[in-house]
Amino acid sequence: MTRPIWEHITIIGTGLLGGSIGLALLERQLASRVTGVGRRQETLDRARERGCLTETTTDLSRAVRDSDLVILATPIRTLHELLNQLTHHVSRETVITDVGSTKSSIVSHAERVLPESSGFVGSHPMAGSEMHGPDAARSDLFVGKPCIITPTARSSPQAVETVAQLWRSLGMQVRQMTPAAHDDAVARISHLPHALACLIVEMATDHDSALEVASTGFADTTRVASGDPAVWKDIFSDNARQLERVLDDFQSSLDRLREMIRADDPQAIEQYLKTIKATRDQWCSKRRQSEINHPTTNPTTPS
Amino acid sequence: MTRPIWEHITIIGTGLLGGSIGLALLERQLASRVTGVGRRQETLDRARERGCLTETTTDLSRAVRDSDLVILATPIRTLHELLNQLTHHVSRETVITDVGSTKSSIVSHAERVLPESSGFVGSHPMAGSEMHGPDAARSDLFVGKPCIITPTARSSPQAVETVAQLWRSLGMQVRQMTPAAHDDAVARISHLPHALACLIVEMATDHDSALEVASTGFADTTRVASGDPAVWKDIFSDNARQLERVLDDFQSSLDRLREMIRADDPQAIEQYLKTIKATRDQWCSKRRQSEINHPTTNPTTPS
Repeated sequence: MTRPIWEHITIIGTGLLGGSIGLALLERQLASRVTGVGRRQETLDRARERGCLTETTTDLSRAVRDSDLVILATPIRTLHELLNQLTHHVSRETVITDVGSTKSSIVSHAERVLPESSGFVGSHPMAGSEMHGPDAARSDLFVGKPCIITPTARSSPQAVETVAQLWRSLGMQVRQMTPAAHDDAVARISHLPHALACLIVEMATDHDSALEVASTGFADTTRVASGDPAVWKDIFSDNARQLERVLDDFQSSLDRLREMIRADDPQAIEQYLKTIKATRDQWCSKRRQSEINHPTTNPTTPS
Repeated sequence: MTRPIWEHITIIGTGLLGGSIGLALLERQLASRVTGVGRRQETLDRARERGCLTETTTDLSRAVRDSDLVILATPIRTLHELLNQLTHHVSRETVITDVGSTKSSIVSHAERVLPESSGFVGSHPMAGSEMHGPDAARSDLFVGKPCIITPTARSSPQAVETVAQLWRSLGMQVRQMTPAAHDDAVARISHLPHALACLIVEMATDHDSALEVASTGFADTTRVASGDPAVWKDIFSDNARQLERVLDDFQSSLDRLREMIRADDPQAIEQYLKTIKATRDQWCSKRRQSEINHPTTNPTTPS
């Protein structure tokens, strides 16, 4: 039996993401103890029954005290308040990360309220589904997927390595970005697509029977629009300025494509479609390759 | 053994769609003979080897002469010329359909060039994939999927019933629309989503590393952008006026959503997201239901 990397990890919020992290840590024997913290005892119990946790508590102070790592896995809207509370319980050495889908506002809030040199490093594991709650938790949720971590000049190198190691040990491809670069990237690959998926659904409802004949392409293109409205409202709100900038870019490109269609310029349209297809096909083959080569073996012990 | 519904069906163009139709007809013993017509003998031979056809020819006249039904399954750009050729070989009684993704221009061309009361009825089986060629043919490609047929005042009732029966016998949900209503519907559920999927890929390339962290949501939302550029150029070109009208509607809705984001109105955004999610979730559950109940049994003989 290999020695666990971590003695004690605390996960605050044990829904799909928090639950899946705990399940993966325990199934892979990466942590000896995983404590779940939450408001609803029922959710905590369910997460423990499913093997996502070894213990549960509603007492933040006790859970955090001797943890190697504290993971905040609650919805974005509760993160600011949670960080305000944590500030009373953590030491300068506590390593903390979150799993929020936006980073600038959370990271700057954390650096404002936590003790100097506290080990906060923001994370965004790019994994999830339309499901939620601990019943949807899966230990392979993260395997082969990208994870962005967003350290700043204030982050301690040891905290950065600990957080990076967490995600690598769950099988993720870890990449560092500044919080602002992260928010621009996800506005492009996630928030804009989400907004457009919603608009596609809206456009289909403006025709008597379009939805009745919609099929596979429509289903795939709009899948994300079935995501949780409460979660997405927070994302749109928290990343509004960045999303607006990306919508400016989008508008310019939309106008160009529209002009090609209006001008009935089949050559220009075909060239555009070829470039896009080549870009996407190349992305797909890289992605398949990284899923084949995902680094799930030989996690090293923390420095 | 049940008696086949059709004695002889001719399929012109034996790629993914034409091949899959033949395969399904023969596997289900719905037709005694399925003749494939095409330019490249190699493609025809491959389609016959795969069980999509019982015979092949490059002689349009011979293939069409004694057919109960002629199915045009070539790319849109060749349909007009193919209809011009067919006019010399078909009788007033020949029932003809196509599988093109746009309908107004094809149906009006067919009604212009074919003999008065000829049995042309346009079809659009809403099934396919990014694959192409007879090797990708699947006999279950159509099962549970919608098919739009677009008869006009000139269509003979018998031809309409024959074409509807073809698609029903392959397991499809058949729905009638005018060619114009069809082109509006597919502009909304297919052509607009295709254009937006392309733009999402373009937006992701405007950031140094967005593509490196793009994941499942991005993959699904953009899947259609890997479709064949030659096919999609024709669709955009053929349905340009309708697509422009839908892009007008889209622009108004985009402006409204953008204003909600700019105004940071989380309540309005959440209400919008809830409405969209409810619409899509309801669509998904209807769709699942129709896949469960698909009418693949008891095809009746033609009237």
